[in-house]
Amino acid sequence: MVDECMKNRITITIDPRVDTITMPENVRIGLMLREQRKKCSLQGCNEEFFGFAFGQSPFPIPEPISDALIANATQGHYVDAAGIPEVREAISGFYRRHFGIEADSDRVIVGNGSKELMFLIFSMVSGSVILPSPSWIGYAPQLRFLGKPYHLLPTRPDNGYKIDPPDLENLLETIVDGQHILLLNNPNNPTGALYDHDELKEISAVCRRRGCLVLADEIYALATYEIENFVSMGVVYPEGTFVTGGLSKDRSSAGYRFGTCILPSSCSEKMYSDFGKLAATLYTNITTPIQYAAVTAYSPNPAIERYMEMTRDIHRMVGEYFAEAFSQIPGITTTRPQGAFYFLMDMNELKPALRNKGIQTANDLQHALLSHPYHVATVSGDAIMMPQDNFSSRIAFVDYDGARALDLYQRSKPKTQEECSQFVRDAAPRMVNGVEMIRRFVEELDG
Amino acid sequence: MVDECMKNRITITIDPRVDTITMPENVRIGLMLREQRKKCSLQGCNEEFFGFAFGQSPFPIPEPISDALIANATQGHYVDAAGIPEVREAISGFYRRHFGIEADSDRVIVGNGSKELMFLIFSMVSGSVILPSPSWIGYAPQLRFLGKPYHLLPTRPDNGYKIDPPDLENLLETIVDGQHILLLNNPNNPTGALYDHDELKEISAVCRRRGCLVLADEIYALATYEIENFVSMGVVYPEGTFVTGGLSKDRSSAGYRFGTCILPSSCSEKMYSDFGKLAATLYTNITTPIQYAAVTAYSPNPAIERYMEMTRDIHRMVGEYFAEAFSQIPGITTTRPQGAFYFLMDMNELKPALRNKGIQTANDLQHALLSHPYHVATVSGDAIMMPQDNFSSRIAFVDYDGARALDLYQRSKPKTQEECSQFVRDAAPRMVNGVEMIRRFVEELDG
Repeated sequence: MVDECMKNRITITIDPRVDTITMPENVRIGLMLREQRKKCSLQGCNEEFFGFAFGQSPFPIPEPISDALIANATQGHYVDAAGIPEVREAISGFYRRHFGIEADSDRVIVGNGSKELMFLIFSMVSGSVILPSPSWIGYAPQLRFLGKPYHLLPTRPDNGYKIDPPDLENLLETIVDGQHILLLNNPNNPTGALYDHDELKEISAVCRRRGCLVLADEIYALATYEIENFVSMGVVYPEGTFVTGGLSKDRSSAGYRFGTCILPSSCSEKMYSDFGKLAATLYTNITTPIQYAAVTAYSPNPAIERYMEMTRDIHRMVGEYFAEAFSQIPGITTTRPQGAFYFLMDMNELKPALRNKGIQTANDLQHALLSHPYHVATVSGDAIMMPQDNFSSRIAFVDYDGARALDLYQRSKPKTQEECSQFVRDAAPRMVNGVEMIRRFVEELDG
Repeated sequence: MVDECMKNRITITIDPRVDTITMPENVRIGLMLREQRKKCSLQGCNEEFFGFAFGQSPFPIPEPISDALIANATQGHYVDAAGIPEVREAISGFYRRHFGIEADSDRVIVGNGSKELMFLIFSMVSGSVILPSPSWIGYAPQLRFLGKPYHLLPTRPDNGYKIDPPDLENLLETIVDGQHILLLNNPNNPTGALYDHDELKEISAVCRRRGCLVLADEIYALATYEIENFVSMGVVYPEGTFVTGGLSKDRSSAGYRFGTCILPSSCSEKMYSDFGKLAATLYTNITTPIQYAAVTAYSPNPAIERYMEMTRDIHRMVGEYFAEAFSQIPGITTTRPQGAFYFLMDMNELKPALRNKGIQTANDLQHALLSHPYHVATVSGDAIMMPQDNFSSRIAFVDYDGARALDLYQRSKPKTQEECSQFVRDAAPRMVNGVEMIRRFVEELDG
């Protein structure tokens, strides 16, 4: 029976919109890396690869959080689609304490990472989306899947690739009437930029005038190096802002897939319940034991606070060190990160030399950097929502042993500039070598 | 600043298709219950409620599974969207051992419950869906959200509400050409029916002739009472069947939200990778510690096998007892469950009496049963995809203390018919009272 059936084949037709979705950056880079390693090993090359592509926290999960998961491992029941009341309450308190957002727990919804919550928001809220360029790659494929229109809003290097309020106003004036939603990622992936209070006020003023909503992707909020400088758009424009966040970045629990959304204060009660309805329709609820663990992650806890302080300080040292080191290479400029795990490396000055080598597009550059003998993984072009003729790449600076770095830091907190540099060289030796490989790549362009 | 902003309100426009989605049955029943309890308490009534509505396993999670979650609580990293290789391998082996499905791990994808995997399948596979009536309520709202056409396939009480192959063929002949996908839920929610090998062969013969795919929702497969009678559609029609399952029912880990799908053998490699691409686009990956726990749940494990044997035997006793008890009430007939947690209670014979009492629709009946003084929660009408003029209700028989029942069972396994009945009366006293309340409801129809 089985054998007979296995001979049969039928043709399965796939929905055409699936092809409009590009492969997620992490999957694509993973495939490229695997291919390049294979090529290299066939040539007998076993030299190391330099990972500036992936944006994952290198640190272990804070113990109170994994302990809370252990304590709740037997929670096997279905729960509310929007989240268990305890965690929504804890998140409400967390946002009040950390960011001054006054949102009661009715305005909180949890999801399988903030990504899934963005999908719910894009699904729920009608109208088109304004996507700044550069941006994280994750947003656009969801919009293509949903058949939702979006407009790119180019930004400029001279103000750190931040959204320029007059540019936003011009765009909103030229595109078709109706509801729009602006994607505001702060601190920014891929640039590391941080918006200050005045900048957010100017953007919110445009949004208010134009009735434009904001999806504030603040997943890196607590990885802002000078944490007192972080301002949430949820405070500046509470009536129109969806604030998303989660445990993946500042609490290093990416694998827990726990994301949060604070809904705008203007949402009607029906909208709150519609979110739950949609979540229940798509996936019933997210993992129950993880939700109980997240109660601890969002409740006041000195050990978790201390962990976040230390890790953000390490991110600061590492980010500053590498942004400086890369910018020392002739022809390269970089953004200076104020938060998150990234900066933008700009090689546009080298365009003629790159083109001489046959590197015509940003995707070519990504391939060339990864190729033998350089072995440097970065992301550029499509993967950061930038034009192909722009030779900028996102540099993620998290390719080191986070547990060891945290241990070094706790044994002796670096204070002076020189101690900080030494700490980074001790904690992240492979990335230090990676910089030298980029230098070699640039030098050999002239060869 | 905050106070000023809080005064502002803007209007947020919701995508109209959100309103086409009906509230999920569990949420709706939950709300109805809460309302009725409130009404009752206002009248000073504190009598008990009888829960025949929710379909959740009453048993605790098998210890090896929660222990595996505990052992993997610190797994904080992102993983493959389709699932970690270890769990896909374990699932492949599990389906081979239990069902004789020969699918290597490339054909396995995991999701946040099988519900989310159905959403991926409906999204991926073009064409319309054939939904038997009655059915679980979960499918249609996803289809409405996706704007995917579906056709109801009515079934008949005289063959246990199973899909009739000639009816299927007629429907496929009359509806527009193109690819279709048949929803086949076996064992069945809401009827408890089990398809035998010949029935599946006849259905698959129609599907082969018509190029119709099958989504075989086999979440209750291992809760088939005579387990040797279960045949998977994945064996009968491997080239065209998506087989979904998960940990929620037979291993009582609903809150873990771990679902599985075996893709058809006819899927191209591109299709396999498209599933991963779509999953990565929507939610990156599902919870990593849960995936590691699921490796244990799907690997050979005598304790888990024994657990499934015992719990399915308890489900059998409870199901047989209550199907019989309900059918003893004059005017009521029931299906006889061969698996899962449900049977259908048919009150159509009482239609004149019901209508005399102002109960015109199946939804009215659901409300009437829940109202004071009956307090009996059931689902009917829309919630089981049946017409409003059909007075059938789904009876879920899982409202008892599963840990206690398992303990009673282990102390002394019931053997004779009388011991089985006594076991059910001991283990599920509230449901026993619930039957009497239904009897009273029926008696009072004539009042």
